[in-house]
Amino acid sequence: MKTFNVAIVGLGTVGSGVYKILKQKASLLAHRAGVRIRLVAACDNDAKKRRALNLSRSIAVRDLRQVVNDPKIDCIVELIGGKGIAKKLILDAFKNGKDVVTANKALLAECGKEVFAAAKRSDRQIYFEASVGGGIPVIKSLRESLVSNDISSILSIINGTANYILTRMSIDKMDFKQALKLAQHKGYAEADPSFDIEGIDSAHKITILSEIAFGKSVSLKEVYCQGITHIDEADIEFADEVGYVIKLLAIAKQTKGGIEIRVQPTLLPKDHILASVNGSFNAIYLHGDETGDMLLYGRGAGSRPTASAVVSDIIDLAKVRCANAPLLPYPAFAPISAKKLVDIESRYYLRFSVIDKPGVLSQISSLLGKQGISISDVMQRERKAGRVVPLIVLTHEAYEKNLRAAIKQIDRLKCIKKRTQVLRIEE
Amino acid sequence: MKTFNVAIVGLGTVGSGVYKILKQKASLLAHRAGVRIRLVAACDNDAKKRRALNLSRSIAVRDLRQVVNDPKIDCIVELIGGKGIAKKLILDAFKNGKDVVTANKALLAECGKEVFAAAKRSDRQIYFEASVGGGIPVIKSLRESLVSNDISSILSIINGTANYILTRMSIDKMDFKQALKLAQHKGYAEADPSFDIEGIDSAHKITILSEIAFGKSVSLKEVYCQGITHIDEADIEFADEVGYVIKLLAIAKQTKGGIEIRVQPTLLPKDHILASVNGSFNAIYLHGDETGDMLLYGRGAGSRPTASAVVSDIIDLAKVRCANAPLLPYPAFAPISAKKLVDIESRYYLRFSVIDKPGVLSQISSLLGKQGISISDVMQRERKAGRVVPLIVLTHEAYEKNLRAAIKQIDRLKCIKKRTQVLRIEE
Repeated sequence: MKTFNVAIVGLGTVGSGVYKILKQKASLLAHRAGVRIRLVAACDNDAKKRRALNLSRSIAVRDLRQVVNDPKIDCIVELIGGKGIAKKLILDAFKNGKDVVTANKALLAECGKEVFAAAKRSDRQIYFEASVGGGIPVIKSLRESLVSNDISSILSIINGTANYILTRMSIDKMDFKQALKLAQHKGYAEADPSFDIEGIDSAHKITILSEIAFGKSVSLKEVYCQGITHIDEADIEFADEVGYVIKLLAIAKQTKGGIEIRVQPTLLPKDHILASVNGSFNAIYLHGDETGDMLLYGRGAGSRPTASAVVSDIIDLAKVRCANAPLLPYPAFAPISAKKLVDIESRYYLRFSVIDKPGVLSQISSLLGKQGISISDVMQRERKAGRVVPLIVLTHEAYEKNLRAAIKQIDRLKCIKKRTQVLRIEE
Repeated sequence: MKTFNVAIVGLGTVGSGVYKILKQKASLLAHRAGVRIRLVAACDNDAKKRRALNLSRSIAVRDLRQVVNDPKIDCIVELIGGKGIAKKLILDAFKNGKDVVTANKALLAECGKEVFAAAKRSDRQIYFEASVGGGIPVIKSLRESLVSNDISSILSIINGTANYILTRMSIDKMDFKQALKLAQHKGYAEADPSFDIEGIDSAHKITILSEIAFGKSVSLKEVYCQGITHIDEADIEFADEVGYVIKLLAIAKQTKGGIEIRVQPTLLPKDHILASVNGSFNAIYLHGDETGDMLLYGRGAGSRPTASAVVSDIIDLAKVRCANAPLLPYPAFAPISAKKLVDIESRYYLRFSVIDKPGVLSQISSLLGKQGISISDVMQRERKAGRVVPLIVLTHEAYEKNLRAAIKQIDRLKCIKKRTQVLRIEE
C-alpha cells in the first residue's frame, strides 16, 4: 500500500482534532482509502499546544519552515488561519511541490484568485471542504455530486454562533444579551463576538460558496452584511405570530440582473425546512436545475466535525496522488444477522379501543407493569360512559418482546374492543 | 482532453433523464470534469422509448448484446432495473472490461455480494449513487466525506410515495385512501402501490445504506418491514396532539446487541428535523462519531434528480479512468460584481413604532403605495390611544430601492416615533 505524507501546521481546535483522527483511526482510514496516511509532522510555534497533544519527538515541530522545506512531505494541512503566515505557507508549499488542505475561509474569500492561480502554476491542488459548514460535505457535493447542475440559489445558515443566539431568543424567549452571554458561556461565542454576530464570518463563507456554485467570484467588499445585534424579542414574537422564524441567512442567487449576495436576518415561514435548523447547527439549502431543492445539515464548527472534513480532503488527495490505489474499496456485503425485532428497545405509542368505564386504565397499566413497561403519558379526551373510546398511552423505553407480551394479554381483556394500535417513537 | 465512452441501457424515466443531461450539458460537463463524456449508445428494446428521445441513428440500439460486446464502450449505465436481464448485463459488462453505473436498488440489496465480487474479480467498478435517495449524495457522502466516521445510526425517509401520503394525511387531514388516490393522480404512486406503501422499497434502500455505513450486510429477508396502510387519521391526530408527527422511517443502528434494521411508521417529535421533511421529499439523518448529527435532504425520485446522481457517478469514473485529467478544476475566482442591494426584490417585514390614532395606517400605506409597494398583512395587536405602539406590516415583493425611499419618507411622519425596523422575508 502506498503512503501519503502529511504535515499539520497549526494545532488549535481543528488541528488537534485532525491529529487525533489520523492517530486513532490510521488503520481504518488505510482500509477505506487504499492509501496509508502518514503524519510526518505536527507543527505549532506554541509549545503548550504541542505538549497538550503529547506529540512524539519525531513529529513535533516548532518552526513551519522546517515543514515547508521537507521534501518527503506530500501535503500540508494549513490550520493557522488568517491571511498572513498562512498565505505565505500555502504559496511556499505549492512552490515546493506540495498539495494543501485548508479550513481558511478568510484567505479563500479574500485572496482566492491569487491562491488558486498559484496552485495552478505549480500544478498543485488545494482542497478546502472544512472552510464552509464544518463537517457538512457542501463543497464536495457542489463540485462533484451536483456536477451536472446549474445552481440558481443558496440560502444558508452558516454561522453557528448567530443561529444559537437566535434559537435561544426564539425558543427560550431570551433577549439578545442573555442569549449572547449563554453562547459565550457554552463556548459557542468568542469574548469579542462581532465577527460572528455582525455576519462577517457568514460573508466569508457565502463568498466561497458563490464561487464554487456559480463559478463567479464576488468581492467580499460587495457582500451586503447585516448582523443580528439589532434584533429584539419583539421582532421574534411578532414574526412567530404571523408564522415566521428569524434566521441569519447568507444568501446567494443567480438572477437576470446579476448575482445577489448578502447576509441578513431573515423571516422564514415556519414550515420551511431551514426554519427547523436550531441551536449551533448549520445548513445549506440550495436549488439545482436537475436535482431541485436540496438541504445539507450538520455541525458547522467544533474540533472533530471540522477535522472530519479536513481528513476527507486529505484522503481524496492521497487517493488520486497515489494513482494505483483502488477507486473506492468494494463494499464487502459480508453477511451478518440483524438483531431480532423482539430484542429492540423503543418508546411506544399505544392506542387502545376501550369501553369508557372506571378501572380500565388500571387493568392496562398493570399488565404493562408486569412486563416492566412504564408509562410516560396517558390521554383520554373523549368521554362516553359505557361506549368505546380511544385511550392513548405513550411508554418509556421498553423491549419489543415485553411489549408484545403485554399487548397480547391486554387485547384479551373484556374492556378492549379492537386490536391495539402499536407504533414506535424515535426521539 | 480524454474521452470516456458511455452506453445507457434502459430509456425509461431515469435513462431518458441521463440522456438529456449528457446531450444538453456536454460542454459544461467536460469543462467541470476535465474529461469528455461521449454517449456511444442509447439502448432499449422498446422502439417507442427510442423514438421518444429522437435518437440519432448512430447511437440508437435495440439489442443490449450489441452494447455489452462493443469494445469501445468504457462504461455501461444500467437503468433497466430488477434482478434478471439487468444482472446478466452487469456481470457481462465486468467480464468485458467495462465499468458500470446503476440505480438498481433491488439488485444491490438482494445480490450485492455477488455483484461486487464479480466487479472485483474483473478489476472493474460499479457506482450506485442513484440507488438510494435519488439526487441526494448520500452514498458518496458516506464513502468519501465521512470516511473517518463510525456511523452509529441512520434514520431515513427514503420513499417519497409514502411520505407524500403521510404528509397529505397530516397537513390536509385526508384519510389514507384519499391521500393514496391523490398520490396516484400526481404520479407519485403506481397503480399497484404496494411496493412503496408496504415499505419494501425502503427496505431495499436501507439494506444498501447499512452496508455502506457499517460495512455489514444484513439479508433483505431479515429487515423487519411494516407499511403505512394501517395508519388512520385518528393516529395522526392523536400524535399531533401530543407533539408528534408520523413518518415512515427506514432505520439502521449499530447497537451492542447487533445491527437493528427495520422499516416502520414512526412517531417523531415535531421539533426533530426529520419531522419537517414533507411531501415527496426524502432525507437521511445520520450520526457519525466525528461529525455528530447530519441530515441530507432532497428529491428522492424523478427523472432529472435521479439522472443527476447517475451523471455524477459517470463523471467520477471517467475522471479516475482517464488518469491525466486534473483532480478537480481550479475555481476561477474570476471577478464579477454583485447586484446592488437596492436592485434586489424581496418581501419585507416592517415594524413601525406609531402613535395609536386613526389615519396612521392610511398615511403609511399611501407612502408605500406611491413607491409601488403593496401590503400583504397588517397587524396591530396593542391598543393605547395616543401612545406609541408597534404596527407590523408585511409587504409583497418589492424593490429594495423603492422600499428605502418609502421608509425614508415614512420615518419623517409625525406619527412615527422610532426608526422603522426592516427585515426581509424568504419563502
